[in-house]
Amino acid sequence: MDTMNRQVKLARRPQPGPLTNDVFAIESAPLPEPGPGEFRVKIEYVSLDPAMRGWVAEGRSYIAPVKVGAVMRAFVAGHVDASNHPDFKPGDSVQGLLGAQQYAISNGANVWKVDTSLAPLQRWVGGLGMPGWTAYFGLLEVGQPKPGETVVVSAASGAVGSVVGQIAKIKGCRAVGIAGGPDKCRYLTDELGLDAAVDYKAGNLAADLRAACPDGIDVYFENVGGEILDTVLSQMNLFGRIPVCGLISAYNAPTPPPGPRNLASVLINRLKMQGLIVFDWADRIPEAIRDLGTWHKEGRLKSREDVREGGLDAFPAVLNLLYTGGNRGKLILKI
Amino acid sequence: MDTMNRQVKLARRPQPGPLTNDVFAIESAPLPEPGPGEFRVKIEYVSLDPAMRGWVAEGRSYIAPVKVGAVMRAFVAGHVDASNHPDFKPGDSVQGLLGAQQYAISNGANVWKVDTSLAPLQRWVGGLGMPGWTAYFGLLEVGQPKPGETVVVSAASGAVGSVVGQIAKIKGCRAVGIAGGPDKCRYLTDELGLDAAVDYKAGNLAADLRAACPDGIDVYFENVGGEILDTVLSQMNLFGRIPVCGLISAYNAPTPPPGPRNLASVLINRLKMQGLIVFDWADRIPEAIRDLGTWHKEGRLKSREDVREGGLDAFPAVLNLLYTGGNRGKLILKI
Repeated sequence: MDTMNRQVKLARRPQPGPLTNDVFAIESAPLPEPGPGEFRVKIEYVSLDPAMRGWVAEGRSYIAPVKVGAVMRAFVAGHVDASNHPDFKPGDSVQGLLGAQQYAISNGANVWKVDTSLAPLQRWVGGLGMPGWTAYFGLLEVGQPKPGETVVVSAASGAVGSVVGQIAKIKGCRAVGIAGGPDKCRYLTDELGLDAAVDYKAGNLAADLRAACPDGIDVYFENVGGEILDTVLSQMNLFGRIPVCGLISAYNAPTPPPGPRNLASVLINRLKMQGLIVFDWADRIPEAIRDLGTWHKEGRLKSREDVREGGLDAFPAVLNLLYTGGNRGKLILKI
Repeated sequence: MDTMNRQVKLARRPQPGPLTNDVFAIESAPLPEPGPGEFRVKIEYVSLDPAMRGWVAEGRSYIAPVKVGAVMRAFVAGHVDASNHPDFKPGDSVQGLLGAQQYAISNGANVWKVDTSLAPLQRWVGGLGMPGWTAYFGLLEVGQPKPGETVVVSAASGAVGSVVGQIAKIKGCRAVGIAGGPDKCRYLTDELGLDAAVDYKAGNLAADLRAACPDGIDVYFENVGGEILDTVLSQMNLFGRIPVCGLISAYNAPTPPPGPRNLASVLINRLKMQGLIVFDWADRIPEAIRDLGTWHKEGRLKSREDVREGGLDAFPAVLNLLYTGGNRGKLILKI
């Protein structure tokens, strides 16, 4: 039994550019005990998400920034190991927003029980976790795809994108993924069953995308921004929808890169471009868990986790893999 | 009685940049006679609209381009002077999409009867015409303003913008207009009753806008694009709405200027940015006519027309005033 709790804390606000190691500090604290109505989770997996760049930055964002000195915000999965809560019992597998640490105390808010007979624990912070919920609500609620329409997703082999593409297929759409390099593209078509994949690194994005989307694009699930958004905008159909889930190409830029030159397409084609984060549907997450779990069990929804060893000490280095394209599938740190 | 019909025809597709005189040709044709179920309109006023730049351009737009050799598309107002149509009688005042010419034949499609006892004829191609309908549906249907919210409109002294600002007031919002120069700004606050006006030419757009919108911006009715959009994006509130009605700053640019650098605000604040044109609500135009007419009669909705003389020969020169800021209020050509 541990007597101490290792924690990743935010040591200082980052400068623009890649996150440097001194942004985080790995510290020890006494093992916390659950109070009345609380339970303790022994954490096994920590999810690493592109949104973390925003969570540590100063200034207005969609969620209050992590305070300097506080435990780094993170989705995690683990097991209850002590409980004074009626609904959570020792041994229960859970996933939730409990922070990058070995142990966490919770009153049940933002924590969900998961079924490890449906999928292994790591998958509940992977494709069936927050990225999957984001894909689910972003595509279905904002994107409103209709059978026969063409859905394009960028960062398509990533944690969110890979679920978007597969849900698009499940909903009867033509699903096209944009990713960097032939390996990722093969993964999209050969393993995930997308209709086409476009390699943005091949140098012919506009022509390749047009070939992959002969009827134009009805829904573009945006994860990256920049040049890719610009190219997609020029191929959108009338009344197209653009759920904006991420703009990762800009997260680490010292100054924001210029926005899309083809913004006139929003007007000409009466596009709807709408930002989203999963917390907007916080009260409906069980819906996503149910549908994603069912599709996974039926073999229609695959996910790939890139689980890194090294424990909490490796947190800063592993996090940076997200911004250098160094990961393959949902990036997870094993504690 | 005329025996000929003077018409503005599209002579050739324009090059990027300001429209040159040779884009249009003024020609004469025999006076047309209405066939069965048709009527003839003697046109008195021709509306000049920023959208015309798109109508004459090559390539995909929200409406098929005007064909080279065809009469230039335009909203007009006039009187029926001959009719074989049961609903339109000689002497009726009408407004509709009948083209830049002295006389037009119609079967009633895209033509509406107007009441010159409520407002003079020129006003029915001004604030109570297409620009007013655009403001009405764009603000109310896409913008969804709620009482107490802050609505900002750019090109606020223009034909669409001036109606947007006044409807925002009528709906109980804080209405803030962005315009160029102190005269236009005074017009907004002193004559139209907006809560504040921001002069984008004064050189302190961000600070001035923040002072005018102390609670942030909930709805931004976009007419211009470019730097103004960028600045507004940085001051939008959570779940703000941006109806995109025009991007006039880019219409005459040889290459599209860079898009907004602050596009991340769409994600962070979960903004909804949506393009619109009035034709999307073609079947609901009588609603707009009714409400705008009522507000006008009640003295709550003012409009200013900038009626230019010179007849059809002046069409190219007068049209270009739209892109140089040379007009004051809705630009109309008197035939």
